[in-house]
Amino acid sequence: MIGVMGTAPRLATDRVEALLSLEQHLITEQCAIERWFRCQWQKTPPPFYASVDLRNAGFKLAPIDTNLFPAGFNNLNPEYAPLYVSAVQHYLAQYHPGLERVLLLPENHTRNGFYLENVARLAELLEQAGLNVRVASLRGEAQELELPSGGRLRLEALERHGDHLQAGDFLPELILLNNDLSGGTPPLLEGLAQTILPPLAAGWRTRRKSQHFAHYRRLAQELGEVIDIDPWLIDPIFRRCQGIDFMRAEGRDCLVANVNAVLDAIRERYAHYGIQARPFVIVKADAGTYGMGVMTAYSGEEFLELNRKARTRMAKSKEGLPVSDVFIQEGVYTYERTAENAVAEPVVYLVGQQVLGGFYRVHRERGEDENLNAPGAHFEPMAFAETGVNPCRNSPPDAPINRYYAYGVIARLAVMAAAREARDWSTQSRA
Amino acid sequence: MIGVMGTAPRLATDRVEALLSLEQHLITEQCAIERWFRCQWQKTPPPFYASVDLRNAGFKLAPIDTNLFPAGFNNLNPEYAPLYVSAVQHYLAQYHPGLERVLLLPENHTRNGFYLENVARLAELLEQAGLNVRVASLRGEAQELELPSGGRLRLEALERHGDHLQAGDFLPELILLNNDLSGGTPPLLEGLAQTILPPLAAGWRTRRKSQHFAHYRRLAQELGEVIDIDPWLIDPIFRRCQGIDFMRAEGRDCLVANVNAVLDAIRERYAHYGIQARPFVIVKADAGTYGMGVMTAYSGEEFLELNRKARTRMAKSKEGLPVSDVFIQEGVYTYERTAENAVAEPVVYLVGQQVLGGFYRVHRERGEDENLNAPGAHFEPMAFAETGVNPCRNSPPDAPINRYYAYGVIARLAVMAAAREARDWSTQSRA
Repeated sequence: MIGVMGTAPRLATDRVEALLSLEQHLITEQCAIERWFRCQWQKTPPPFYASVDLRNAGFKLAPIDTNLFPAGFNNLNPEYAPLYVSAVQHYLAQYHPGLERVLLLPENHTRNGFYLENVARLAELLEQAGLNVRVASLRGEAQELELPSGGRLRLEALERHGDHLQAGDFLPELILLNNDLSGGTPPLLEGLAQTILPPLAAGWRTRRKSQHFAHYRRLAQELGEVIDIDPWLIDPIFRRCQGIDFMRAEGRDCLVANVNAVLDAIRERYAHYGIQARPFVIVKADAGTYGMGVMTAYSGEEFLELNRKARTRMAKSKEGLPVSDVFIQEGVYTYERTAENAVAEPVVYLVGQQVLGGFYRVHRERGEDENLNAPGAHFEPMAFAETGVNPCRNSPPDAPINRYYAYGVIARLAVMAAAREARDWSTQSRA
Repeated sequence: MIGVMGTAPRLATDRVEALLSLEQHLITEQCAIERWFRCQWQKTPPPFYASVDLRNAGFKLAPIDTNLFPAGFNNLNPEYAPLYVSAVQHYLAQYHPGLERVLLLPENHTRNGFYLENVARLAELLEQAGLNVRVASLRGEAQELELPSGGRLRLEALERHGDHLQAGDFLPELILLNNDLSGGTPPLLEGLAQTILPPLAAGWRTRRKSQHFAHYRRLAQELGEVIDIDPWLIDPIFRRCQGIDFMRAEGRDCLVANVNAVLDAIRERYAHYGIQARPFVIVKADAGTYGMGVMTAYSGEEFLELNRKARTRMAKSKEGLPVSDVFIQEGVYTYERTAENAVAEPVVYLVGQQVLGGFYRVHRERGEDENLNAPGAHFEPMAFAETGVNPCRNSPPDAPINRYYAYGVIARLAVMAAAREARDWSTQSRA
């Protein structure tokens, strides 16, 4: 059963007084924003799907991660299924009208019931959109898995014949990845004649957060000019360091210098706006996913004195890949809290250019300056009660219907940054 | 307040036994149907919006009228507003990305509260989609009208400057017509540089039902081949007579002959399928709208003995235009009835290629062989509880979620016929 936010998390308003009401401004400028997005999507088609982690500090609303293999479709409000299905149909109609048979390739987490529910829900949405869908594991063997909700998920046996993947006698026209390829691209997927979405280059082995946020920075400037706001209000400052080895303490000087540079830049903006908060940064792998190897820091010097446990944690990301390029991102406080006072972070889902809505990632045991993407006992998804698609100019800017609209604007900007990344990949692959 | 169907009208199943379950077949063939639609929309873009009146006889499900100026947005289920808004956004993104300022021109029915609610709801959906919207009357004067729901609708003063329409200092980029131009195209709208949707040729002064249903007939054949059904199961037989003058009894021979020809063709199909029902036809103006000049007939000879009242009623359509071309359409029984046993006829709404859902037109005092489009005391709209966008293969074919999907398929086929009409108009206007 999916929890739906009856009362949306409230924002601690003492933090935001005397500051520009960003949400109000986004509602006021809705026409200009929507027109700008329409024209941008014509130039740069969106990825098939995405989820965007946001942080809302009231004075600032910014994306902190854009996932091209979203894994929480089961956490969306089921009431708006027609919107999700229509988003798939519009994407297909515009970009792949002739496709009918789809093979969905999920992660190999066959023991993670939450993830299996996501796969089952995604397969169902694709079917409802009128696709012929099969699910298969990259491990290859057929199996039938039980879902916590009581249903079953069938994984087909996967075979490769020449330049085609097949599941039994099912010959798909499209391979849809819900596997972020953190372990690199398996040979099974190399050189296929079938269309693969997202493209293999979207896997975390090739993708870089710094490249994504460099595109995002330019987009925040472009949108900032259109609606006349300081782009910092929607854009987290970042720097990166290359060639870091946490275990051997190589590259520490770069870390200290760049962490301090980001903190100085935040301090300058906080002073400019009179924000009474302590600047912090989030340090994570430039290539990578999940909540491994993520730490909060308040000064560069913290990296001179990391203990062995912290170094080990930072040195590896998902699938045990060594971290060598490090991404240092402005920490954005999340001042949203549930009725039970747990810290909440919005996650927005999209298919193509269409915002579907999202959910709050709620964490009872973490603080407002910490990474909340740490699934486990204290992770509770709470579906948005509204989609954010239809703002209401006559309601207050912090009414859920309008707050979620603001989330949708920032999430779309992040997805457009991912779309520009994809343009780079195709340029690179042609070169 | 909008009534929503808690229990959808039931279908009298004794009529449909031993016949192909059309709804089941449409669900089974969903993948082929959706793929076919996607490819067709690429070739022929859909009109901006439309509503389609359907009749469901169980053995047969067919459109009987396709309205390019839909006037019941207030009757749609408000729960799915995000779907409606996203449909507007997708249409704009694909066909008119740069537009931002829209002038909505409604009918002049300023005393019809239901119609005003439709205009207000439509304007609201356009605003929520991120458009800057004004509403103005073709009569030109500014006024503020009270809505039965309690809100207000402001009509701006309309001015023409050279080849542009303006409402005060608001210079629209798009003129959206919700006025079917039954009285012909007003000079105010001729030769404008602004985009007009639907195009002026979509007005009932130029549009012909026979042209629409000729396109529909070809499309029913095309789709019938794709999913292997007799196209008659979704297509009403028709003929037309030109140069009819009901008052002077001119053209009666054509009426008698063509009514009988349509009845014979229905009789042949009824015999083929073993359908125990009395064939009938609906006779109406080939150009026209609304429930004026519509009659049910069981034999051609009825037109030899029309009394003065019936002739007067048939001789004029909306806005008093004389009827000269007559459209004779196979009557499709509506075997759907509400819990109170009133006859119900589904009306499906679309924006672009996107089905939004619809409502039942319920009429307590009319029979299953009569035209139900007669607004008045006994007209009750009942919103569909589901949109018809997301069918469920594991539910019975007559579950509302699947029945509405079937409605959406047939309604889209009718809208595609309208799209092909529009292609004819643009060919004609270039010639």
